[in-house]
Amino acid sequence: MKILVLGGDGFCGWPASLHLSRLGHDVVIIDNMSRRRIDQEIHAESLTPIRSLGERLAAWQRVTGKTIRSITLDVAEDYPELLATVMTERPDVIIHYAEQRSAPYSMRSPKHKRYTIDNNVNATHNVLCAIVESGLDVHLVHLGTMGVYGYGTAGMTIPEGYLSISVNDPDKGEISTDILYPTNPGSIYHMTKCLDQTMFAYYAKNDRVRITDLHQGIIWGTNTIETKLDDDLINRFDYDGDYGTVLNRFLVQAAVGYPLTVHGTGGQTRAFIHLQDMVRCIEIAIDNPPQPGDKVKIFNQMTETHRVRDLAGLVARITGASVANVPNPRKEDAENDLVVANDSFIELGLKPITLSEGLLVEVEETAAKYRDRVDLNQIPARSLWTREQAPGIPEGYR
Amino acid sequence: MKILVLGGDGFCGWPASLHLSRLGHDVVIIDNMSRRRIDQEIHAESLTPIRSLGERLAAWQRVTGKTIRSITLDVAEDYPELLATVMTERPDVIIHYAEQRSAPYSMRSPKHKRYTIDNNVNATHNVLCAIVESGLDVHLVHLGTMGVYGYGTAGMTIPEGYLSISVNDPDKGEISTDILYPTNPGSIYHMTKCLDQTMFAYYAKNDRVRITDLHQGIIWGTNTIETKLDDDLINRFDYDGDYGTVLNRFLVQAAVGYPLTVHGTGGQTRAFIHLQDMVRCIEIAIDNPPQPGDKVKIFNQMTETHRVRDLAGLVARITGASVANVPNPRKEDAENDLVVANDSFIELGLKPITLSEGLLVEVEETAAKYRDRVDLNQIPARSLWTREQAPGIPEGYR
Repeated sequence: MKILVLGGDGFCGWPASLHLSRLGHDVVIIDNMSRRRIDQEIHAESLTPIRSLGERLAAWQRVTGKTIRSITLDVAEDYPELLATVMTERPDVIIHYAEQRSAPYSMRSPKHKRYTIDNNVNATHNVLCAIVESGLDVHLVHLGTMGVYGYGTAGMTIPEGYLSISVNDPDKGEISTDILYPTNPGSIYHMTKCLDQTMFAYYAKNDRVRITDLHQGIIWGTNTIETKLDDDLINRFDYDGDYGTVLNRFLVQAAVGYPLTVHGTGGQTRAFIHLQDMVRCIEIAIDNPPQPGDKVKIFNQMTETHRVRDLAGLVARITGASVANVPNPRKEDAENDLVVANDSFIELGLKPITLSEGLLVEVEETAAKYRDRVDLNQIPARSLWTREQAPGIPEGYR
Repeated sequence: MKILVLGGDGFCGWPASLHLSRLGHDVVIIDNMSRRRIDQEIHAESLTPIRSLGERLAAWQRVTGKTIRSITLDVAEDYPELLATVMTERPDVIIHYAEQRSAPYSMRSPKHKRYTIDNNVNATHNVLCAIVESGLDVHLVHLGTMGVYGYGTAGMTIPEGYLSISVNDPDKGEISTDILYPTNPGSIYHMTKCLDQTMFAYYAKNDRVRITDLHQGIIWGTNTIETKLDDDLINRFDYDGDYGTVLNRFLVQAAVGYPLTVHGTGGQTRAFIHLQDMVRCIEIAIDNPPQPGDKVKIFNQMTETHRVRDLAGLVARITGASVANVPNPRKEDAENDLVVANDSFIELGLKPITLSEGLLVEVEETAAKYRDRVDLNQIPARSLWTREQAPGIPEGYR
């Protein structure tokens, strides 16, 4: 299949592009290089020494003999060029990773809030609009987030996208129906994925666009079978306060002998999935598209849940690091449960890699290996969710 | 109170500004003049001879001795200027009409879809962001639409914004909770108001912004007590295929002796409210704000429902016009019921003007009075909801 990967130079987009290329698909990466620009802006750098996109693509060709082309294009800003690309390339599938993906970055300042809204909403809408204008029957696969659910409404189990409800209507009595799960975003970034969801539902209904929305948990793991084929193919590993996931920050802190900084009580429960499973999920999603006129197909792309303090305990046991509790910069409940249905991918053949079996590899092959590249100034979370919020990190750790 | 009216030169914003000024509030109009620019773009003009905003404001001063100031500013584009205005003016209330408000216009072309999304989402988010950045406790009153509900999910009565649901949870058994009513927008324009709703819920939760969202029906009526005080204060009356509401188109068709063009069977049920009641609702909403930390206060701002074919019949009876059925350019059910709760405004003192008592005034004082200004070319709806849609108006009526 011909596949456009929007945001194909990023943390998820790059390994997904390689995986699909290895499977024999004709992959074209579309990227505006914004993630690399943001590295400059926030004075952060991937722990792993990633190469330029040009070097990456040359290495892929050298190692596998396969060609991935790339087009530098801003999906949110350059609609005419996006449309022309869709018309020329005539993709079967468009995978949409072209959004600003950090919650803390989206909360840094009014400017960052506004950028995240403007970029993400217009990127998603431009893709939808271009698919319809092209007249092509393209399957759009979008990377969403578990964060659209919040922590679940009233403690209920989180289904895959749709919720069966009953309403006691004053005239008609008990009415049962299915609705899109009510969203409850915890940041501006998460909110953009809720806005995306509304746009997808509309375009699936009005224009019969075939759309799959993947509500993804937090990715862990740095590399996949394909990115390990050559040093020049290495994937990025973020550990800064904006883009670094909680697990990555723990890994880096352990590698350099610092305490693992847990926000609040660490009672927040999060959903996780390994990067290798993510690329497999993309493959499964592409092989199981919805039909024109179907409602949006939603998968929960996660394989296990953990409390943050349990994660810290796991890393501490493996590495011998200590744990320090610091104030939480986010506005959220101190403790939450999270029960998530993920039957769809499991039934379609996903065999999850578990944290307990895969974590040691991360400790040894990534965090320890590149410990000399660590810049401790990057680690603290600096974005505050509200004016009233206490700064996240005590003076000693700044 | 100090009140900023964003979009204060428009069809709703102008009479609302006058009404609030007459009540003694200090009103400042913010407008980017986009509605007048769009008139130029689509070669349409208000049936009523509206004056420039400068002439309008001078007339208001002359007639009442009251001053309304105005600032030309694009809320979606000029964030720094918007913020500076909020910081300088320190409003108690901001009324937000600054969105592209036509469903057919939003469906004209990919360019119009993209403009409506970009303008409306960024306008709303900029206002929210500026309120938070200013640190002021501003009550934001937003003009939403009944269209966020679609025609109601599964035929149920439409409550005021929130729906009480029960869920049968696999672990916890029956769970009851209130959710934002599941949206089901019928056009790109309506979708932007659904996106607004998600942003409002987030900012009310995260930043304790006080927000009232008015889910308004179709406005009928052209003038209010205040706009009738002087010819230079006259409000706009749109009858073109994009901005003209169904009732306005009927009135103009009747005035010039053309058949009333009913889309499809005319079985679509719509919600209505008179312009005079709209300004009264704004007054009531301002006087009954939510408290910081409250969820968004949602009112259904409508007073009666009618099927389109019944409206046509009503106008036909008064005017003697005939009725012609033409294909529907919209993608919607041919027939729908609409049962809407509107207790909140009624309980707070709204005394609705009914169509049956007010329609004759519109026929005589607006449509008949300005019939010489009618341009019949403006009337047909030209926007098609999908590629497959039949053109809305048969050749003879184009």
